[in-house]
Amino acid sequence: MPNLPSCITPPNRILMGPGPSDIAPRVLSAMAAPTVGHLDPYFLQIMDETQQMLRQVFRTENKLTMSVSGTGSSGMEACVVNLVEPGDRVVVCVNGVFGGRMADVASRCGAEVTTIERPFGEVFTPDEIADVCKRVSPKLLGIVHAETSTGARQPLDGLADIVHDAGALLLVDCVTSLGGCPIEIDKWGIDAAYSGTQKCLSCPPGLAPVTFSDRAVDVIDKRTHKVASWYLDITMVRNYWSDKSRAYHHTAPINMNYGLHEALRIVLEEGLEARHARHHRNHLALRAGLEAMGVEFAVAEDHRLPMLNAVLIPEGVDDKAVRGQLLNQFGIEIGGGLGPLAGKTWRIGLMGEASTPRNVLVFLAALEACLKAQGHQSSPGAGVAAANEAYAHA
Amino acid sequence: MPNLPSCITPPNRILMGPGPSDIAPRVLSAMAAPTVGHLDPYFLQIMDETQQMLRQVFRTENKLTMSVSGTGSSGMEACVVNLVEPGDRVVVCVNGVFGGRMADVASRCGAEVTTIERPFGEVFTPDEIADVCKRVSPKLLGIVHAETSTGARQPLDGLADIVHDAGALLLVDCVTSLGGCPIEIDKWGIDAAYSGTQKCLSCPPGLAPVTFSDRAVDVIDKRTHKVASWYLDITMVRNYWSDKSRAYHHTAPINMNYGLHEALRIVLEEGLEARHARHHRNHLALRAGLEAMGVEFAVAEDHRLPMLNAVLIPEGVDDKAVRGQLLNQFGIEIGGGLGPLAGKTWRIGLMGEASTPRNVLVFLAALEACLKAQGHQSSPGAGVAAANEAYAHA
Repeated sequence: MPNLPSCITPPNRILMGPGPSDIAPRVLSAMAAPTVGHLDPYFLQIMDETQQMLRQVFRTENKLTMSVSGTGSSGMEACVVNLVEPGDRVVVCVNGVFGGRMADVASRCGAEVTTIERPFGEVFTPDEIADVCKRVSPKLLGIVHAETSTGARQPLDGLADIVHDAGALLLVDCVTSLGGCPIEIDKWGIDAAYSGTQKCLSCPPGLAPVTFSDRAVDVIDKRTHKVASWYLDITMVRNYWSDKSRAYHHTAPINMNYGLHEALRIVLEEGLEARHARHHRNHLALRAGLEAMGVEFAVAEDHRLPMLNAVLIPEGVDDKAVRGQLLNQFGIEIGGGLGPLAGKTWRIGLMGEASTPRNVLVFLAALEACLKAQGHQSSPGAGVAAANEAYAHA
Repeated sequence: MPNLPSCITPPNRILMGPGPSDIAPRVLSAMAAPTVGHLDPYFLQIMDETQQMLRQVFRTENKLTMSVSGTGSSGMEACVVNLVEPGDRVVVCVNGVFGGRMADVASRCGAEVTTIERPFGEVFTPDEIADVCKRVSPKLLGIVHAETSTGARQPLDGLADIVHDAGALLLVDCVTSLGGCPIEIDKWGIDAAYSGTQKCLSCPPGLAPVTFSDRAVDVIDKRTHKVASWYLDITMVRNYWSDKSRAYHHTAPINMNYGLHEALRIVLEEGLEARHARHHRNHLALRAGLEAMGVEFAVAEDHRLPMLNAVLIPEGVDDKAVRGQLLNQFGIEIGGGLGPLAGKTWRIGLMGEASTPRNVLVFLAALEACLKAQGHQSSPGAGVAAANEAYAHA
């Protein structure tokens, strides 16, 4: 017998970082169901059901709603490469790492990219959007609903009218928001959106739900260049997902799609409104606890995401030491800052299955131990007490 | 409670098509292990171990050996987009659907593509490769080792010298061959290769193992344009897989990587030589059985793949009726023909876990029933008897 690594035996973690989030045992079991062929009538039925459930979660009637066979960033790339042709003018609103990524993706497929910028953690006003649309006359404007790198929530209601009036399409990143706070594809007039499975849908990473409006499909249908990416070419992939031909494009990740199917069932069993309310309630309790411990949020109150709480690392406290202690002593993962926020913020996720009172309380209790080890003083038990008080009044 | 689809309960299948293949229960269990974060020290260890095992399976020392976060076709695209810049001359050898796909991928990233062609089911000679290299002076020559659309095996030994003498890199598609018949990355001088998890590695689809030689890495390092795809940009992804920085690029599909890790352990436990011999033995038994039933192979004997047996549909036999009966009455999936071979061939896979004497016998027995239903006469029991005879002498 050769010298082989041991089998998979992961440590016991609570996933309270920027994703992946905790996964329901039902989803993990579904992923372990026997693989069938990608053209098996059973799998085609699972695809149909997944599309139908995704439409409910995205709150859309869009026919072209499906999962891309890659992680959330592949969903971003799929939206951009299919909607953009070389030379097209694209505006990207950059207030964090993921807006920056979208601009990079657009420039790689030959777009003439204009960015507008806000400091990390802030959001854009309708006037700023209107100004850049007027100035650039873009084909597409891309914006991030939930900036995973900063914890800021971009208000979207009303933006579509501004963008459409300028003759452009509105593309929205809702990787972190879908399933955790309201996102209304049809009501808000969004033309294309992408998400990831590993945030508030609480499915392992590996698929990217996407949806395209009729207006976006029309733009795709009228392309004059082939899509830059073969793998992400929606003009072919859609025949496999939606067309009667079910024409083979690539071999779909069967078991990942099993997992997403079960995760969507869980989301819809709970109901979107109840799920959003749960995320909000746990966010408020976490916030009460953190504030009682003297930990401040990095984002203004009006624009905080309930599922991703970005806080300032208290002065004199060692970022890596605290995250290491949380992971090694308590099995709790939180995220560090990204980009210019590295070493300055922590990102505490309360996403999907991980958004529970139990996780809020155990995290606050464990953080107290870690901050104490760093010499950071707060009133003992203050965080847990404040969170419990918040729950009592919720 | 809303009206929801049922939970995942797949039918009982034997996967004897062109992939996915049957998956070992150990692999499915590994995929259901609790998800951890993509920067968790445990997952980084799993990545290191996976790279080490992939090197053994690819038979290479290449440092840049890893899995791409998409299915096999994303591995193809990752190799091409990272090695090719706009205006580069690329030769692709096309004798099936997947060679054609590679040419399409290369042209989409701006390459000046020259194809050489052989009829589906045939292979290329060293002279043909030498001629086109002399004529075109390409930067890259791409060729398919195991054409999944035709069942033909391309001899590779000696090709690298020809390609390197012309100053080009040799890119090889070994999606279907890896783990089922010999592939020697270092010994054969291959510069870049990609595979898929769902063929002879018997892991569900969703990842693409890739490997790049130092010569290929050098070409990547000297690029003057950004890689056309952000998602597949190896210049960034490699920092996450191999560099001490472990710089975040995208959230890896954690549970898919668990599955691949376990699948590779199984491959190496069996040993590559024993595994190849098993695939060969079952291929010979299947062949004996099919020939005894009057079913002919579509590929010349010298170039048949052991894991993908392409046969001619006997005259007067209804393709879809037989495949439907195999699936519905016996739970056995085989593949139809692709491209110009649609309706003319069947593709019978004996890949990884599915390459067993039991599957060979049950398939031959079931095929007899299906052919009989089509009025196709053969001596009753002849297929099974011939296969058993082949095993007795193996």
